[in-house]
Amino acid sequence: MAIKIYGSFRSPFVMAAGLAVYEKDQEFELVSINMKSPEYLNNFNPFGKIPSYQDEDIILFESKAIMRYVATKFEGQGTPLLGSTVSEQALCNQWLEVHSHSFTPLILELGRAISRNPEQPDFSVLKPTLEALAKVFDIYEARLSASKYLAGDSYTLADLAHTPFFYIFNALSDEGTKKILTSRKHVYAWIQDISSRPAWKKLSDRPENTYYKSS
Amino acid sequence: MAIKIYGSFRSPFVMAAGLAVYEKDQEFELVSINMKSPEYLNNFNPFGKIPSYQDEDIILFESKAIMRYVATKFEGQGTPLLGSTVSEQALCNQWLEVHSHSFTPLILELGRAISRNPEQPDFSVLKPTLEALAKVFDIYEARLSASKYLAGDSYTLADLAHTPFFYIFNALSDEGTKKILTSRKHVYAWIQDISSRPAWKKLSDRPENTYYKSS
Ligand SMILES: N[C@@H](CCC(=O)N[C@@H](CS)C(=O)NCC(=O)O)C(=O)O
Ligand SMILES: N[C@@H](CCC(=O)N[C@@H](CS)C(=O)NCC(=O)O)C(=O)O
Repeated sequence: MAIKIYGSFRSPFVMAAGLAVYEKDQEFELVSINMKSPEYLNNFNPFGKIPSYQDEDIILFESKAIMRYVATKFEGQGTPLLGSTVSEQALCNQWLEVHSHSFTPLILELGRAISRNPEQPDFSVLKPTLEALAKVFDIYEARLSASKYLAGDSYTLADLAHTPFFYIFNALSDEGTKKILTSRKHVYAWIQDISSRPAWKKLSDRPENTYYKSS
Repeated sequence: MAIKIYGSFRSPFVMAAGLAVYEKDQEFELVSINMKSPEYLNNFNPFGKIPSYQDEDIILFESKAIMRYVATKFEGQGTPLLGSTVSEQALCNQWLEVHSHSFTPLILELGRAISRNPEQPDFSVLKPTLEALAKVFDIYEARLSASKYLAGDSYTLADLAHTPFFYIFNALSDEGTKKILTSRKHVYAWIQDISSRPAWKKLSDRPENTYYKSS
């Protein structure tokens, strides 16, 4: 059975799961579903969220669990994604948690404000969010001055998880707000780097993607 | 160097990190710090949260990264915590994410309401939270009817991570609210089970603990 990912490319979490599959040189089918239908709730994810994942061995939900599973199952193929030492592994896990708890809530708030009014998002109400995000990126900047990637010298799931979320900045027309990224040299270089990987190009070039423009 | 955990037992995340260390038959020193001090921010956790962890090899923050590191480093000792098959491992990761994204936000809201007014928490304002929590526990109930633990037949980090959070229910005097747990047979048996493990008893018996009462 081919790998199936349930959901839509409108979700950055679905994109992240797909990206892990592509970094492992595997293919997948994107299956569009109604995430609140009894069929989906009963068979794929009782919490009614996307993505869910299916192959011949397992059905799984939660994007980070899917990413870890794919990275383990195809360990010898494509890009190693889990960190090559115990310490890199631990830091990969640490920064995946930072992604969940410190990065994602803020960036999604920004994303929602943009989608409420794509032409002219109201940045004044977002001031506290943008200030908090700037502080988070200061911490990323310090980290990425000391090592090329979040977990160390190599690209891991910790970096991968962030990639789809930066399209939110690409959608920004406001240069002042964009500066949160462009003014931080190492963060900016890192985003360029992780966004120019072939797996991300291949994923965002799929016809189902109408949301994520390359930077 | 002995293992050090930075923080206070008032935090369920600190307790979870300590519990992982105890399940692995290791000891640790609890170090109380000011989490917003420059010393802590610079050397332990730039995000200014607890817990952080230190041993001779690493400094690490984020409780789930710490738990995973401890489970891997002491793999051959104490309780196996990562799942014994690829599928159990994947489900352990899945339920750790459920803990982060579906369980913790609701239970902490309940905890904050109780600490605002421990004698008589205002449950009326909590109605949406309690309803959402009941739905989450319905999903846990279905899962725990099919397998003894969240990831399968064995206790893993997915179960461990939940243990310290149930003290919030022990603090409840309101029987109606407590029923969210007691009316769900498998959830209730699971809580009794994970809360009666020797490692949890030993942890909650430490003199630094003045918050967590055994159920
Ligand atoms: N923690 C989940 C988050 C998934 C998530 O929130 N997906 C959104 C789409 S971006 C969703 O399904 N929302 C529907 C809902 O929450 O009802 C993961 O990483 O998979
Ligand atoms: N995702 C973190 C959460 C840690 C956390 O929120 N700890 C609280 C104490 S329960 C804290 O340090 N709060 C201080 C703050 O956020 O400023 C983890 O799992 O370690």
